[in-house]
Amino acid sequence: MPATDVLVAFSPSGRQGRVPHDTSLLEAARKLGVDLDSVCGGRGLCGRCQVEIGEGDFAKFGIHSSIKHITPDLAAEQKYAKQKDLKPGRRLACHARILDDIVVDVPPESQVHRQVIRKRAEVRSINLDPVLRLYAVDVPKPDIAVPSGDAERLIQSLDQIWGLHDLSIDPAVLSECASALRAGNWTVTVAVRDGTRIVGVRPGFTDRAFGLAIDIGSTTLAVHLVNLADGEVAATSSAMNPQIRFGEDLMSRVSWAMSNEQGGAEMTTAVRQTVDDLIGQAVADADILREDIYEAVIVCNPIMHHLFLGLDPGPLGVAPFALAVDGALRLPANHLDLDLATAAEAYFLPCIAGHVGADAAAMILSETPHERDEVTLLVDVGTNAELVLGNRQRLLAASSPTGPAFEGAQISCGQRAAPGAIERVRIDPDSLAPRFRIIGCDQWSDEPGFQEAMKSTGITGICGSGIIEAVAQMALCGIVSPDGAFQTGDDKNFVLWPGQPEIAITQADVRAVQLAKGALYAGAKLLMDLFGVEKVDRIVLAGAFGSHIDPVHAMALGMIPDCDPALVSTAGNAAGTGARIALLNATARTEIEAVVKRVEKIETAVAPSFQAWFVDALAIPHASDDYPELRKIMSMPLLKKSASRAKQRCREGSKNRTELQ
Amino acid sequence: MPATDVLVAFSPSGRQGRVPHDTSLLEAARKLGVDLDSVCGGRGLCGRCQVEIGEGDFAKFGIHSSIKHITPDLAAEQKYAKQKDLKPGRRLACHARILDDIVVDVPPESQVHRQVIRKRAEVRSINLDPVLRLYAVDVPKPDIAVPSGDAERLIQSLDQIWGLHDLSIDPAVLSECASALRAGNWTVTVAVRDGTRIVGVRPGFTDRAFGLAIDIGSTTLAVHLVNLADGEVAATSSAMNPQIRFGEDLMSRVSWAMSNEQGGAEMTTAVRQTVDDLIGQAVADADILREDIYEAVIVCNPIMHHLFLGLDPGPLGVAPFALAVDGALRLPANHLDLDLATAAEAYFLPCIAGHVGADAAAMILSETPHERDEVTLLVDVGTNAELVLGNRQRLLAASSPTGPAFEGAQISCGQRAAPGAIERVRIDPDSLAPRFRIIGCDQWSDEPGFQEAMKSTGITGICGSGIIEAVAQMALCGIVSPDGAFQTGDDKNFVLWPGQPEIAITQADVRAVQLAKGALYAGAKLLMDLFGVEKVDRIVLAGAFGSHIDPVHAMALGMIPDCDPALVSTAGNAAGTGARIALLNATARTEIEAVVKRVEKIETAVAPSFQAWFVDALAIPHASDDYPELRKIMSMPLLKKSASRAKQRCREGSKNRTELQ
Repeated sequence: MPATDVLVAFSPSGRQGRVPHDTSLLEAARKLGVDLDSVCGGRGLCGRCQVEIGEGDFAKFGIHSSIKHITPDLAAEQKYAKQKDLKPGRRLACHARILDDIVVDVPPESQVHRQVIRKRAEVRSINLDPVLRLYAVDVPKPDIAVPSGDAERLIQSLDQIWGLHDLSIDPAVLSECASALRAGNWTVTVAVRDGTRIVGVRPGFTDRAFGLAIDIGSTTLAVHLVNLADGEVAATSSAMNPQIRFGEDLMSRVSWAMSNEQGGAEMTTAVRQTVDDLIGQAVADADILREDIYEAVIVCNPIMHHLFLGLDPGPLGVAPFALAVDGALRLPANHLDLDLATAAEAYFLPCIAGHVGADAAAMILSETPHERDEVTLLVDVGTNAELVLGNRQRLLAASSPTGPAFEGAQISCGQRAAPGAIERVRIDPDSLAPRFRIIGCDQWSDEPGFQEAMKSTGITGICGSGIIEAVAQMALCGIVSPDGAFQTGDDKNFVLWPGQPEIAITQADVRAVQLAKGALYAGAKLLMDLFGVEKVDRIVLAGAFGSHIDPVHAMALGMIPDCDPALVSTAGNAAGTGARIALLNATARTEIEAVVKRVEKIETAVAPSFQAWFVDALAIPHASDDYPELRKIMSMPLLKKSASRAKQRCREGSKNRTELQ
Repeated sequence: MPATDVLVAFSPSGRQGRVPHDTSLLEAARKLGVDLDSVCGGRGLCGRCQVEIGEGDFAKFGIHSSIKHITPDLAAEQKYAKQKDLKPGRRLACHARILDDIVVDVPPESQVHRQVIRKRAEVRSINLDPVLRLYAVDVPKPDIAVPSGDAERLIQSLDQIWGLHDLSIDPAVLSECASALRAGNWTVTVAVRDGTRIVGVRPGFTDRAFGLAIDIGSTTLAVHLVNLADGEVAATSSAMNPQIRFGEDLMSRVSWAMSNEQGGAEMTTAVRQTVDDLIGQAVADADILREDIYEAVIVCNPIMHHLFLGLDPGPLGVAPFALAVDGALRLPANHLDLDLATAAEAYFLPCIAGHVGADAAAMILSETPHERDEVTLLVDVGTNAELVLGNRQRLLAASSPTGPAFEGAQISCGQRAAPGAIERVRIDPDSLAPRFRIIGCDQWSDEPGFQEAMKSTGITGICGSGIIEAVAQMALCGIVSPDGAFQTGDDKNFVLWPGQPEIAITQADVRAVQLAKGALYAGAKLLMDLFGVEKVDRIVLAGAFGSHIDPVHAMALGMIPDCDPALVSTAGNAAGTGARIALLNATARTEIEAVVKRVEKIETAVAPSFQAWFVDALAIPHASDDYPELRKIMSMPLLKKSASRAKQRCREGSKNRTELQ
């Protein structure tokens, strides 16, 4: 009866309308299409529907008082407030009922599609809207007079109570459905995927629904356990990729698969087992159950992708580098030997090309070049650098065979980034004395306390970021010429640390770095060429390794194209972040699938100009004068030191000058 | 160019139109929407597109000669004709090209949606249109310049060549896809389910695609291997249900599951293993491979349904007899431990209610009461009789607790139908001398040669159909009164065979038969009552046992309602036939799912009138006079023999008259 209707207005949405007196705030919100969350469906258990009652005068709504126009909090709310800490002024919308005209504030965390804020200011927040949601529901008991299956009555109840039409149920959860209904005395919480399919049934009320963002690198495996309710990472675990014992780099693993009958299967089993172990660790850390995990998003390069899926990686080892499949995939997680909820599903982001994988797709999702006008260059530095260039008009992608130098392999004193590894290098332009920092020690090598601080780790070698800085600094100081040749006569080793072991840079090391950075630079220039730009507006260095590179040194070395250093950033694990986005936002999946389809795939191996760019890019450049920070480094007079002074710092190395192959 | 177009007309469809000169008949058929099959896509391999060129004058089409208006058969057709026997006058439409106006006959077996004729005239043919079809296709090799996954190129080719839009591929077959493409040198045959999903990829051309119709009875398991190309049964295998060792009847199996922790799982494993073994036998018999089987349709009663699916049958053992699920189910066959093609799928027909299973649904599909105006009563006789009554307006279903008497259990000399069992009984109304026939022997017991012929089996007992006839005949001859009481004084056994062992019918046996037939009759009358009919127009006795019952004796006994004997038929394994229909025709699945939803489920246990009907139905009736055949039997003067003469034929039995409980 309209006479007893009251006016209710919700902020910040501004939605308002009349509802019958004594309607609950949750019902009113649903009726008016307000984005207000609830899992328990009004039981006062989940606390997702918390709202604040507007105080004061809301003349714009025609409402002049709110605070007393609501029922007082009774048992259920008081119980929730006591057990789960309801902030003062907050009410559970499912229990508070409207007595008179009222204004209600829905705080951000009570919205279904709330934002998950990311740490880096330059990237967009994640709009929380996962493929999977929970719904608590009461189901009628079976009735002999109206025979109907448990599953069918559940589906009917979800339709009536939650408005979920045309649901189906995964046959794999029929058994848990029947037992949960009885264990929960005909109240259950249901996990629904895509708004269409029941994929989990738990007795009573629960708000535990988790997902996994899994990053399968050639070297490192990382598992992030994410709470689908708030998007937060509940636990992270990581381990070395156990496939390393079959081959250090990707191509040697492909060779192993091709030369051993069960080689591929062995590697598949090994990596799946380790990932499942990592899931076990994460689950233990977060104190949840494996069955609370319903979704997994997996990112990896194409060879890891094929091996994890149990597909033959052989064709990826030779031209034309054919993928068995490039599109996104959804499949039951137990097909991948992952022990999660019965009907848990794994989602693989699409691969871009034979050398540009789902990890690159995830990097696009995280860094959103396709949503910007400026031209972004994304670089995932690894044995194969994956490059993406473009903006909202056009995107190009390629991979560049940098080789393993940046990972510390094929460098005389090289090693992986680990405690004891030299990661930062500076050389005094006058004395040519080097100083450095090692991982696990805060002091530079020339600072007081270094000798003491380094004892726990020792100085064990030099990792990729250290090599880049060492060679860049050597060029800046004239120890090597722009063409990479040592200017120190026959003794070609530049010693960074004269201890045991001695850590030095050899001529061969410089050549390896030149090859690696030349390939990366040539790949970037090829894409810029094809895109038709001379300069990029923004560079993002991604990947575990990319994040440790100092952008200025990378530019000084000529590893990446010139760019305002302020607009060169490191994205950390962009692939992992992309996986998390695809986990938390269903639309992001369709978005990246569409974007990848329109990415232009460039194969450097058959692009004629790549070779030309590569030869040009071998030189260690005079950096451009455009950027003050770069100029500061560049202002150090190149080659001003005599060859003889440089020689003092060098010891005998390889006698023969190593030529570029 | 219209100038060079020629007129082509296809019969029997009557479709006609103009196509360019030198178009192949297959292309012309596709262009004109003619239903002409092809798997190999024009390679001259599958022979599915055979047509005949019309001869003579086709004035109605405006065509006056046909036979020479086609290219002569060249190498490919000659090769096919030689290797696979092409009938004279037949041409392969994919190779014969049109030179001038022509009339083409498409024989029934060349139509995609051809009919599979069934043996029984009263039931409809099966329209061949399975959920799965094969398509041969050439796929472009991978091209380094245009990177694309193997699966994506395959999907694209199927779109271009076969017009299959928006296909997806089951991730489980990605591995076989990549290897088949290479093994087949980029020609493969693809299995597509529902016209939407690739579920199998085989190298080169193959036309092998099979399905299974699986009938899981409490007692017997049967597997029918069906060629999806022509609908024919290629092999059948059957075995006893190994669950019998956990309990003879359904309820004792439910008890086993409830009283043993792993009881349900044990029975699930046992039945799945035996079904998989039966598949192995069928595959061997038909000389195909397990991977040639893409589909399985499974029918069974609700308890078998739950146990095969690994669902707890416990709730089905007590009121309200709740099913975990009643709708049709599709799930991967390997979830049921069936070793078939990688992405093979199992389809369960819907259950109707807690006691009326997918077998009853299959019976409806086979016997089509819902497509007729006359009122049909379908009876599947078993420990629980499943009853369906109705017509196109309305369908009712119920089950009736007949108990195991009709299966020979709880009968003193009862046994299962097996060689040596008495299956037919006649009693001379004057002499009261019985004669009978046993399974495995063609002669009646009073015919010459019987003594010799029976030696191989012996006379071991009496099976269900024999019991029905014995009791009916005993009533007709006055050995028992209409209320079932022996008329022979104290000696209550009626001896059929005085050998070793002696085969006799006891008073207790008669009581057991009365209870069983009373329950069945009461169920039928309850449904007739609710439907509002006094008489049914047609009765179908289904099930392995139902098929052995003589309808006239069943009516004389009062087991089924009166009906013109000419309209009482036995349907054999109607459930198995229904499964085969669901296997061969996709539409039949949606049809039966919709029909089952509108079936009114009647629970006899809570229907007040059931008890009344049951008490009434215990009497052995004077059959109605409506039907001559029945009258012939009924004309034998009831009770005309004296009790003393009957007594001669009887021996001492149970001393106390067994009362109905």
